[in-house]
Amino acid sequence: MTRERIVIQNIEPQLQNGEFFIKRVVGELIEVTADVLGDGHDVLQAEICYNWEHSKNWETIRLTPLENDVYTGVFNVENQGFYDYKISGWIDHALNWQHGIEAKLKDGQYVKSELLDGIQYIKAIEKQLDKEGKKYLKNAKEAFADEARYDEAIAIAQSGDLHQIFLDNPTRKFAKDSKVLQVYVDRKKAGFSTWYEFFPRSASEVPGKHGTFKDCERLLPRVAAMGFDTLYFPPIHPIGEVNRKGKNNAVNAAEGDSGVPWGIGSKFGGHKAIHPELGSEKDFKHLIKKADAMGIEIAMDLAFQAAPDHPYLKQHPSWFKKRPDGTMQYAENPPKKYQDIVNFNWESDDYKDLWKELLSVAFHWIDLGINIFRVDNPHTKPFYFWNWFISEIKKKHPDVLFLAEAFSRPKVMQQLGKEGYSQSYTYFTWRTSKHELTQYMTELTQTKQKEYYRPNFWPNTPDINPYHLQGANEAQHLIRYALAATMSSNIGLYGPVYEFMVSEAVPGKEEYYNSEKYQVQHWDWNTDNKLIRVITKINAIRKEQAALQQTNNIRFCEIGNEGLIAYYKWNQDMTNELLIVASLDPYYKQSGRVRLPYELMRHTPGAHIMVKDLITDSTYHWNEEWNYIELHPSLPFHIFQIFR
Amino acid sequence: MTRERIVIQNIEPQLQNGEFFIKRVVGELIEVTADVLGDGHDVLQAEICYNWEHSKNWETIRLTPLENDVYTGVFNVENQGFYDYKISGWIDHALNWQHGIEAKLKDGQYVKSELLDGIQYIKAIEKQLDKEGKKYLKNAKEAFADEARYDEAIAIAQSGDLHQIFLDNPTRKFAKDSKVLQVYVDRKKAGFSTWYEFFPRSASEVPGKHGTFKDCERLLPRVAAMGFDTLYFPPIHPIGEVNRKGKNNAVNAAEGDSGVPWGIGSKFGGHKAIHPELGSEKDFKHLIKKADAMGIEIAMDLAFQAAPDHPYLKQHPSWFKKRPDGTMQYAENPPKKYQDIVNFNWESDDYKDLWKELLSVAFHWIDLGINIFRVDNPHTKPFYFWNWFISEIKKKHPDVLFLAEAFSRPKVMQQLGKEGYSQSYTYFTWRTSKHELTQYMTELTQTKQKEYYRPNFWPNTPDINPYHLQGANEAQHLIRYALAATMSSNIGLYGPVYEFMVSEAVPGKEEYYNSEKYQVQHWDWNTDNKLIRVITKINAIRKEQAALQQTNNIRFCEIGNEGLIAYYKWNQDMTNELLIVASLDPYYKQSGRVRLPYELMRHTPGAHIMVKDLITDSTYHWNEEWNYIELHPSLPFHIFQIFR
Repeated sequence: MTRERIVIQNIEPQLQNGEFFIKRVVGELIEVTADVLGDGHDVLQAEICYNWEHSKNWETIRLTPLENDVYTGVFNVENQGFYDYKISGWIDHALNWQHGIEAKLKDGQYVKSELLDGIQYIKAIEKQLDKEGKKYLKNAKEAFADEARYDEAIAIAQSGDLHQIFLDNPTRKFAKDSKVLQVYVDRKKAGFSTWYEFFPRSASEVPGKHGTFKDCERLLPRVAAMGFDTLYFPPIHPIGEVNRKGKNNAVNAAEGDSGVPWGIGSKFGGHKAIHPELGSEKDFKHLIKKADAMGIEIAMDLAFQAAPDHPYLKQHPSWFKKRPDGTMQYAENPPKKYQDIVNFNWESDDYKDLWKELLSVAFHWIDLGINIFRVDNPHTKPFYFWNWFISEIKKKHPDVLFLAEAFSRPKVMQQLGKEGYSQSYTYFTWRTSKHELTQYMTELTQTKQKEYYRPNFWPNTPDINPYHLQGANEAQHLIRYALAATMSSNIGLYGPVYEFMVSEAVPGKEEYYNSEKYQVQHWDWNTDNKLIRVITKINAIRKEQAALQQTNNIRFCEIGNEGLIAYYKWNQDMTNELLIVASLDPYYKQSGRVRLPYELMRHTPGAHIMVKDLITDSTYHWNEEWNYIELHPSLPFHIFQIFR
Repeated sequence: MTRERIVIQNIEPQLQNGEFFIKRVVGELIEVTADVLGDGHDVLQAEICYNWEHSKNWETIRLTPLENDVYTGVFNVENQGFYDYKISGWIDHALNWQHGIEAKLKDGQYVKSELLDGIQYIKAIEKQLDKEGKKYLKNAKEAFADEARYDEAIAIAQSGDLHQIFLDNPTRKFAKDSKVLQVYVDRKKAGFSTWYEFFPRSASEVPGKHGTFKDCERLLPRVAAMGFDTLYFPPIHPIGEVNRKGKNNAVNAAEGDSGVPWGIGSKFGGHKAIHPELGSEKDFKHLIKKADAMGIEIAMDLAFQAAPDHPYLKQHPSWFKKRPDGTMQYAENPPKKYQDIVNFNWESDDYKDLWKELLSVAFHWIDLGINIFRVDNPHTKPFYFWNWFISEIKKKHPDVLFLAEAFSRPKVMQQLGKEGYSQSYTYFTWRTSKHELTQYMTELTQTKQKEYYRPNFWPNTPDINPYHLQGANEAQHLIRYALAATMSSNIGLYGPVYEFMVSEAVPGKEEYYNSEKYQVQHWDWNTDNKLIRVITKINAIRKEQAALQQTNNIRFCEIGNEGLIAYYKWNQDMTNELLIVASLDPYYKQSGRVRLPYELMRHTPGAHIMVKDLITDSTYHWNEEWNYIELHPSLPFHIFQIFR
């Protein structure tokens, strides 16, 4: 039993009635809507209440009614960490009284009794007011009670001053609070990052020599100059020697083969150790500092699995499954066998020690200066582990970000986002047609996924040399990078194969031939080419244009050619507007007319618009809704900034 | 920390993550779907668990995987009351082992070690099996352990027998249960009912005489013959005499005016009393019994408000608001005043006593034999009150049904459904065009509303004489009743004005002139006409055709004329299929071609179909997808039964 009379329903944004938190980055506005219902016709008020990291006081912002019992308001998240938020609503008897008296006066009724009635609402709040306010209310009460001052009384009763006093001093009698929801606010990098991946062991200038962290330091200016802010290395730990794989995934390594960096652990140590040929922990720390000075964060790989000679197997045999003959059970996905990898047994009786040890691995590297992890195959470890793991780390280190490397079933990938991953790999790598790209971007940005799944678009990875890039020309590489970099605010590139257009594949598979996964490569890192210069330009544009620094602000534009794709992007206050038009054809000229989305742009038809191509600095003057576009493989896209 | 590895998401049907229960009627099937996710590639199993009224044991039904990690299963609700249901899922290690060994054998691998490994899964369940099962498993274990019996062992390992044993005897290790959801199961009448409303005081055969319950008894055969199963009376309580309203809503009653039945309470008593002119409590009980014998339930009106002379005002002054001069505050919706009505103050300090008293009102009539209440203006009483009130009654009397009379804002009406109302009034009364009807039916039956909002379609009520019925001809009355009765399984008619086509209105308003709300009427109840005969026929068809006994099974069909509307209805096992085609034009012939929904009918194009008009018994033979229809105002609709 209760005297509450307000029902609050359908709060947005939220995820599964608050079962999971939604995500934002620092400085974003959260526009909340909710259905707030009261019985009958009484005037009600509602507010959004929000609270950073369980601070004592809730901040409140009064909501505005829209139509159909929907209320709305906006709050700003300025700090990293969790915000609680909820909606509170109440029948506002003072405002209801004022509304009633106004209606009766308009109807010509005599409201002496109503004025007397109003005195109680003044009495209920007068103590909260300052001296001047008290004086105003005292006079109001006296006028309401004095029939001789009727004209003055009804003027006060209907006044904006009294209305404002009632608005500012609600009694909140029988207020109803909604369930408390949560938003997790990350640092800005969670929403805008430009990744580059290379294999440190391929960083040497000397052919045949194993690269070192010192070699990586030498490459930092190149990475910075190209405009990347995150440098991700595949695992840097000692590589297993037992059952080590050879070049091109040969089951047995030949003498001198370097092995797979994801086969972690040997006599040189495990997940907290560094592969001796790369350098020392001191070298690694030095590299992190040098990178930091150039605006680059080093992202580490977390690959929670062991080579057969990982020290864990002797130290913690209970963390692994045994075969009936007493040997360790290597990884399988029947009929496939992975003899160089042993998986953890997540159902081990000792699982709590396992979880704690893995957490200590992350803390080890965080203490060394690492704030970003790319997590290998998270979908083969329990969801509940990740939820715990990420939250334990974020409690102490809210700056730490996690990128989920999962190319798995869609709902598994989504779930990892819900459990706390800051960013996630996507199917962009395989989406090539206009229909596929439009449908996929719409799913990512216009469904619930926008609340918890932050896409990171990779045109390629060491694991995926997609068919459309195999033997592809410069135009195709330009197209795929431009699409990734203008659709998604988080992107990544596996180089230097991409910018050097090295795309030889294992026949019939989306795998690189002579992949760096299995061998050290030698690159001429000083090579310059047009692709590198355009990537550099695109990355610079991303830093300048706020509309490219978020992903959800995208709407596709009509364009009369299946070989062309166009989309409009904007920033929150509409001070930055872009129109991207890309050709999907790397061989032939494509042309068509693109429609400006006047309704989104709140544009007056006929008004003049100037668009400027940010790559070439060419400008075009458009007075029409539909405008002619012609793209050639030499520069198969426009990133237009729109000026009014 | 946990060793659970299953995540269960997105269970359907459910309402707001289980915040409210969903609704069904006895005998319905509930088709459940859920996303069930595990990490990695292990075989998983899931089941729906359900449980009637907290009985000790959960029933379980194994789910079937669809695509994209969705699992599905069906359970049947056979009893009235609450069912809990939830999804349980687990990695099934035994089935996973069997799946692995099969894949390896197909790949030509030698599986000696895997056979030994399998012994543990047999040991884990062998105790649960009967003698024969134990014998089978003992042999299997021995074969698995004996290299000399390898061929036999791999045959057993891959056998359907062993598969079935594993399926039937899951160990459910680390099983994960979803949140428990609830469905409330009503008796069938909640889903299929045909209401008739008349004013008992207008039931007399003698002009000018106040009708009595005895007069009502005399009319029961007419109601039954017309095919109505629920007879709803406006309030039968003593009518207030203070500030009583006169004919046609005159502010002051003239001498002898009967007043408004919703102005409840006088010196003769309140909500538990009977208006003296109608008869005694004994008469009322007799009427209920007589009706019951003819298959008619009497539905009472619950109007929780008081006339100024209701005994409550003296007995419980704290339940009402006082004006500053000490008088009771009558009802208002400024600037409108309702001096003949005093509302309860739901914020009274005494509110708990008020709630209990109102509950006792319902129990009073339930004890007399009433099982259906039509609740007047429920949207002006707190939502939380209704939730409590309905649940308290349903706990003791699950047969009792509640119809919410709320023509309010859409979300307010929906909320009353969520809080527990069995049926609800709708906007059908004002939906007349094909677009409006299609859009509204789609909203009711294809959105979440289908889980909790059971529509009851009324072409008219004493409060609403809609513009399209004012002065309308027979065809229009036929159309509106046929639409209501074939779209919605719950319907109601306010008579005899409807079937007598008495539709004079207060000019410019949707109100009846000389409304029975304000005065006693005299009717010639023996009148016969075509409209009555068609209504009777439609009601008989509703009783025969299962497809008309549920509302959500409706899909609109293409028909090339805005003046015609067509829809397909079917029952769960497809043994009953109907095609309804109605004209929306009461004056002119309308014709067009209707498309049979072959995809819903799972029909082979070209196969022969016979349709039979259930009103006229005419039959038509159709071999095409599109078929010609011609409707005349004389009988402006077809209810076709489809025969294959």
